[in-house]
Amino acid sequence: MLKVDILTLFPEMFTGPFDHSIVRRATDKSLVEIKIHNLRDWATDKYKSVDDKPYGGGPGMVIRVDVVNAAVTALRSQRTKVILLDAGGKKFNQKKAADLSHDEHLILICGHYEGVDHRVHEHIADEVISIGDYVLSGGEVPAMVVVDTIVRLLPGALGNEQSLIEESHNAGEAEYPQYTRPEEYNGWKVPEILLSGDHAKIKKWRSPAQ
Amino acid sequence: MLKVDILTLFPEMFTGPFDHSIVRRATDKSLVEIKIHNLRDWATDKYKSVDDKPYGGGPGMVIRVDVVNAAVTALRSQRTKVILLDAGGKKFNQKKAADLSHDEHLILICGHYEGVDHRVHEHIADEVISIGDYVLSGGEVPAMVVVDTIVRLLPGALGNEQSLIEESHNAGEAEYPQYTRPEEYNGWKVPEILLSGDHAKIKKWRSPAQ
Repeated sequence: MLKVDILTLFPEMFTGPFDHSIVRRATDKSLVEIKIHNLRDWATDKYKSVDDKPYGGGPGMVIRVDVVNAAVTALRSQRTKVILLDAGGKKFNQKKAADLSHDEHLILICGHYEGVDHRVHEHIADEVISIGDYVLSGGEVPAMVVVDTIVRLLPGALGNEQSLIEESHNAGEAEYPQYTRPEEYNGWKVPEILLSGDHAKIKKWRSPAQ
Repeated sequence: MLKVDILTLFPEMFTGPFDHSIVRRATDKSLVEIKIHNLRDWATDKYKSVDDKPYGGGPGMVIRVDVVNAAVTALRSQRTKVILLDAGGKKFNQKKAADLSHDEHLILICGHYEGVDHRVHEHIADEVISIGDYVLSGGEVPAMVVVDTIVRLLPGALGNEQSLIEESHNAGEAEYPQYTRPEEYNGWKVPEILLSGDHAKIKKWRSPAQ
């Protein structure tokens, strides 16, 4: 069973996404165990501070390396992969999701999305991942992206395994257009070929090389 | 004020992300008004069905065009942009986020991430957006990505406007490494130049061309 520990300053953010989705169903089926931890629990000073101003000046606050390291050290075991979600990381894609779905234990570090002490990159994280060319306020929503993407690849997570085989991004192609009832709505019609029952023609129509 | 209507089959998913984050602060400051709608409220048949099997066969379920159209028609006004979150859409990036932050009213349609009747793409959505080259179970987490990214660009949403100016993806560059206290931890040191107080040298060290 895949175990995922998430380190965050906003544990409450994960309530909805993980309680009402495929992640919840996978948890109920014991395919994955996800624990959300408040990074602040590992703060060392009396103010429970987890971030501070950047050396050399500049805007924003930077998450402290000592706090992150204390948390990771407490949670890490021998087969743990530590992942920092950060705007400067390597681009996440479906292949990376597939790789991570075979791991035993992941620790995901969510920080201010562009402000985690660089020693976390250098000495603590095994991988630094960005979900795309845009800037979020924190690593929390990116962690949800990574978890949702990985969890649906776990055998048994989807009701229909066939979906995994046919879906687009495995092959790097956009999927074919999908249609369902009603056949005609508002003058907008389903392509006739899909109603023909001619499976060979439908397959050809759906293939990228059509 | 930016208005955002979100159409989803899982309204509960948005509770945590929108109640405990920059989105909540922006809502409290009346910079944005976000409403979450259950697509099922626009179902027309007695079973309240919102999806059905694809014409021509294949796995998975496809969201119905008539249900989506009824919802969009009810919510749309003259200055509305309708966005479908879909794996086959155009790649979201920071420039697109900046563009959308100037809109008045957005409707975000979250469906099964690879199964929305193609007539929604053809006739209803003004834009189809994908957040990256990976497959999620639904459009809900992508909608959170889009909203978080846009909201933090609204004037007044961040405490520190300077952060917006300096941040990386506006320029398409990775940001410089950030460090904060402690100066040395576990034998890991902050680069001396950042402690030097020599602002010209620090600026040079931080510039991408170093």
